[in-house]
Amino acid sequence: MKQEAKKQVLSTESYKGVRDFYPEDLAIQRYIFDTWAKTAESFGFERYDASVLEPSELYKAKGAQNEEMVNEQTYTFIDKGDREVTLRPEMTPTVARMVAGKRRELTFPLRWYSIPNLFRYERPQRGRLREHWQLNADIFGSHSEMADVEIILLANQILLDFGARPEMFEIRINDRAEMQAWYQSIGVADSEIISQITRLNDKKRKIPVLEYAEKLQKITGNAELTDRIILQLDQVGIHNKVSAGLDKLGIKNVVVDYSLARGFDYYTGTIFEIFDVSGKNNRSMLGGGRYDNLTGLFGGDPIPAVGFGMGDVTMRDFLETHDLLPKNLQTVDIALIPMKQEYALEAEKIAQAIRATGRKVYVSLADKKVGDHIKQAEARNAQSIIVIGEEEIASGIFTLKTLASGSEIKGTISDLLK
Amino acid sequence: MKQEAKKQVLSTESYKGVRDFYPEDLAIQRYIFDTWAKTAESFGFERYDASVLEPSELYKAKGAQNEEMVNEQTYTFIDKGDREVTLRPEMTPTVARMVAGKRRELTFPLRWYSIPNLFRYERPQRGRLREHWQLNADIFGSHSEMADVEIILLANQILLDFGARPEMFEIRINDRAEMQAWYQSIGVADSEIISQITRLNDKKRKIPVLEYAEKLQKITGNAELTDRIILQLDQVGIHNKVSAGLDKLGIKNVVVDYSLARGFDYYTGTIFEIFDVSGKNNRSMLGGGRYDNLTGLFGGDPIPAVGFGMGDVTMRDFLETHDLLPKNLQTVDIALIPMKQEYALEAEKIAQAIRATGRKVYVSLADKKVGDHIKQAEARNAQSIIVIGEEEIASGIFTLKTLASGSEIKGTISDLLK
Repeated sequence: MKQEAKKQVLSTESYKGVRDFYPEDLAIQRYIFDTWAKTAESFGFERYDASVLEPSELYKAKGAQNEEMVNEQTYTFIDKGDREVTLRPEMTPTVARMVAGKRRELTFPLRWYSIPNLFRYERPQRGRLREHWQLNADIFGSHSEMADVEIILLANQILLDFGARPEMFEIRINDRAEMQAWYQSIGVADSEIISQITRLNDKKRKIPVLEYAEKLQKITGNAELTDRIILQLDQVGIHNKVSAGLDKLGIKNVVVDYSLARGFDYYTGTIFEIFDVSGKNNRSMLGGGRYDNLTGLFGGDPIPAVGFGMGDVTMRDFLETHDLLPKNLQTVDIALIPMKQEYALEAEKIAQAIRATGRKVYVSLADKKVGDHIKQAEARNAQSIIVIGEEEIASGIFTLKTLASGSEIKGTISDLLK
Repeated sequence: MKQEAKKQVLSTESYKGVRDFYPEDLAIQRYIFDTWAKTAESFGFERYDASVLEPSELYKAKGAQNEEMVNEQTYTFIDKGDREVTLRPEMTPTVARMVAGKRRELTFPLRWYSIPNLFRYERPQRGRLREHWQLNADIFGSHSEMADVEIILLANQILLDFGARPEMFEIRINDRAEMQAWYQSIGVADSEIISQITRLNDKKRKIPVLEYAEKLQKITGNAELTDRIILQLDQVGIHNKVSAGLDKLGIKNVVVDYSLARGFDYYTGTIFEIFDVSGKNNRSMLGGGRYDNLTGLFGGDPIPAVGFGMGDVTMRDFLETHDLLPKNLQTVDIALIPMKQEYALEAEKIAQAIRATGRKVYVSLADKKVGDHIKQAEARNAQSIIVIGEEEIASGIFTLKTLASGSEIKGTISDLLK
């Protein structure tokens, strides 16, 4: 009997692997999103968005896939109209679809950004949840390496705008064509073998050196080649055009790294990632690259593109690790405290007058002692309070108390707001 | 053969019934969201959020349902771990779940708002899509009718902050308890019959008078009662405590309307909707009410609550109908135009210096004639341009041209920014 009664109580748990954002957490999330948006807009990027629901075929086309999609780590279901629908696992196919769909009306190059939520069906773990948000920034319609330089400049500037210093992170750049040429120069001629090595390199930072060496040997079948790759790969350090551009713009924490792969099939040129160098967050904070052919899947000539995605979870981990999150993100300017609830309507009238000046004001509603109202105002990070009683209403003279200093000033509401 | 080749081209269409937000549309969406957020925060409301994925059981509990849920107008599927998941069709069950989940840590009353996207599986039509966004604002933990007054004051203020005038819209208020007493006073004693009439009233504005009368007659089975209801319902006009409070705060476009129903089972007291009076948008722009028992579904004493939801689609329809949308929502301050692409890196350096002053700047990247770059700057709503050539780079003296007036000033970059 007791068991049964219990069953009728609904759980307050969220769905597994996703997050509830209580105001305290959402304030941090908003701070991250607002900083992303502000920096992207300072570069002239325009914001777009789309639904989280996409036709599943968008992710199935050859050339649009990524390894995780092949492993079926997506939320896909059949709707009541027999359509196969997917909760988008990444934004790039969506933005390619949108750009291709209005290619005749849009003026290129485009600078576009978005902050979508993305879904992956995987075991929740540090820095990786079933739902996360991502800044996606892309330049469409430019073959110029200046577009590659600018997109990395933007990624770098975002970190600086959060207060990060260059020594906290490292920008690693690779170029698939350059890398291919390097492998050929050291004796790996077969492009299928280069592909296999690249895929292995994608896991290089996550597996022990011995395991890496064994797997590499299996691929090359040639001990001399395996040695050459292991010894030379990390020391290439060639400055390519993109890293040279960044250097001229004063960005020195850039490494050209031929072991940098990325799990997506659609990259065609520059690829890059940014890593926290503290050693506390191993996943890349940001990854991107040039994908000049993706829009071609929708018909017509492909439109060249370069862009990146930057996740909210890894971003927050980075900011917390380096103590870069501001305090007191949730504040109100004034709490109005009616001494009795019968003055609440009068307080609301005063609140309206104060709101009209652009300030944030709330009226205490509960039947509590004034002291408890003040405690709540402190908990809510109110800067000041005004207690409203019979005398104040009769005289029109109020006392504004600043909570931090305890200092008080008296006057009419319009006096107090000056 | 041709057919087959065609099949391989991916469609650029979005999933049915959802919207792609190109920058032009998203700028309007952001303007709406930003205004919602700003006004809600001016009342001291704190923002929260949650995932669009919820356990399906959240919507199945008796007392949490709404009619549309019963008709199974939801996106529900089984995940790979055999969990039943629903794309949230409304935010109220989610916020009730979150508040109940941390009831011991939270200090009441709470003022919370969110701007979630919501999904309903229905035939797309005007003002009603499969995915829409909604401002949800709620006060938890106050039984006082001041909370009802304030939540409606907030809804009203939002419309005023969009530039609406009171004569453009009407606030209709009902109270389930008062309404029940009124029905009893005119001779409808059975509360099941009152329920049936209320449900019919929910459709009253959408069906012809004759059809309404016939359906009402079927419910009452009493011609005299049917007449009484039809004749008196619209003329009740009793000012209750909530409408009296709003009146004292200077809000005059309020009507007490006993025919106002709402499709949700969980309302317990005040209910209200706001209508555009232009006659061009028949759906209510906003609806809400008091739901004092919903959190009780999660165990423990229920926490009283009053709130509303306001949709983006009906909001935009209203703003367009009354010509309240601002022009030029997407602007940049300065477009830097390199005369040749070899100056692009130099331009980017200058752009960085200008961005550091908080301005929005982009660098023209394409290989076009200067005239075409200027056309693009105009299309992008750039306020000013600076053309960068060999001479400018050599001398450090640049010309800032304001596009609207055509006026020009010359100087170093730091001179120009003053």
